[in-house]
Amino acid sequence: METWEALTSRRNVRAYQDESLPREQLDRILEAGRRAPSANNWQPWDFVLVTDQETLRELSKVWQGAGHVAGSAATIVLVAQIEEDAGRRDRLRFDLGQATMAMMLAAADLGIGSGHANVSDQERTRELLGIPDDRFAAVMIALGRPADRPLRPIGRPDRRAFDDVVHAGRW
Amino acid sequence: METWEALTSRRNVRAYQDESLPREQLDRILEAGRRAPSANNWQPWDFVLVTDQETLRELSKVWQGAGHVAGSAATIVLVAQIEEDAGRRDRLRFDLGQATMAMMLAAADLGIGSGHANVSDQERTRELLGIPDDRFAAVMIALGRPADRPLRPIGRPDRRAFDDVVHAGRW
Repeated sequence: METWEALTSRRNVRAYQDESLPREQLDRILEAGRRAPSANNWQPWDFVLVTDQETLRELSKVWQGAGHVAGSAATIVLVAQIEEDAGRRDRLRFDLGQATMAMMLAAADLGIGSGHANVSDQERTRELLGIPDDRFAAVMIALGRPADRPLRPIGRPDRRAFDDVVHAGRW
Repeated sequence: METWEALTSRRNVRAYQDESLPREQLDRILEAGRRAPSANNWQPWDFVLVTDQETLRELSKVWQGAGHVAGSAATIVLVAQIEEDAGRRDRLRFDLGQATMAMMLAAADLGIGSGHANVSDQERTRELLGIPDDRFAAVMIALGRPADRPLRPIGRPDRRAFDDVVHAGRW
């Protein structure tokens, strides 16, 4: 798929077809995340790939808005070091955002829908996935072929107007 | 360009050809940022597009690592609300990371190189760009055609090994 088509077709997908995803497609999505940029090449991330249905069902309970994880074909859990310093926290979250976007676009390119989920119950997530004590689960990316309709370019996305967001020259 | 080519060709470009970029290409890059996902559709960003050479030279001094901004064809400054709450700060930086990655991939798709720069001197940046008091400049994305060589897929990126980053099933 052309890059512009992937950028304009990606949307928040939270209902998935009951169909597994080939491991090579999942690896490609993960590879896009691995290649994401990071200041000083910090790469403060680990990706736990979950495809086991029972684990997905349990993960869907670690945050009130994570119900869609239960029906996903796979979910990638982004794990990072616990950081106290505000500046390091800022950089960490920024880098996780970059890696997330890269993976979602790599997914869209394959016709695979994606939907974010947060993690509230860290202890349960730690137990389910064996995450070390000095790390935490920052965000989950649920993946699967969309149940409703294939990904197609969105003409008028539900976003602030271009001229509201963009300032030419100065504010 | 195919999405996978854009994802694998994007690299940190800090030296640019002395050539301006068409406004429609810049608008396309900005549009990719506008469409980036944001939890609860918060969209906590404004994008200031700078192409004036004198302003670019001045912006290159607001952080020690921003020298490449001076020679960029254009630089997009991501502006956001100042947030004190740690949770909101986390979400803000994550969303800015997602928007940044979307813009860098839209740029790569057009053969345009991009390089991050931080902002240390907020007061000078505020003065240069007319940023309101309740907002700050979070990051700059310098853009231009690469001076060294065109963007091409990178076979072995300088990143942690795939098997180090990716954990199948559990940690």
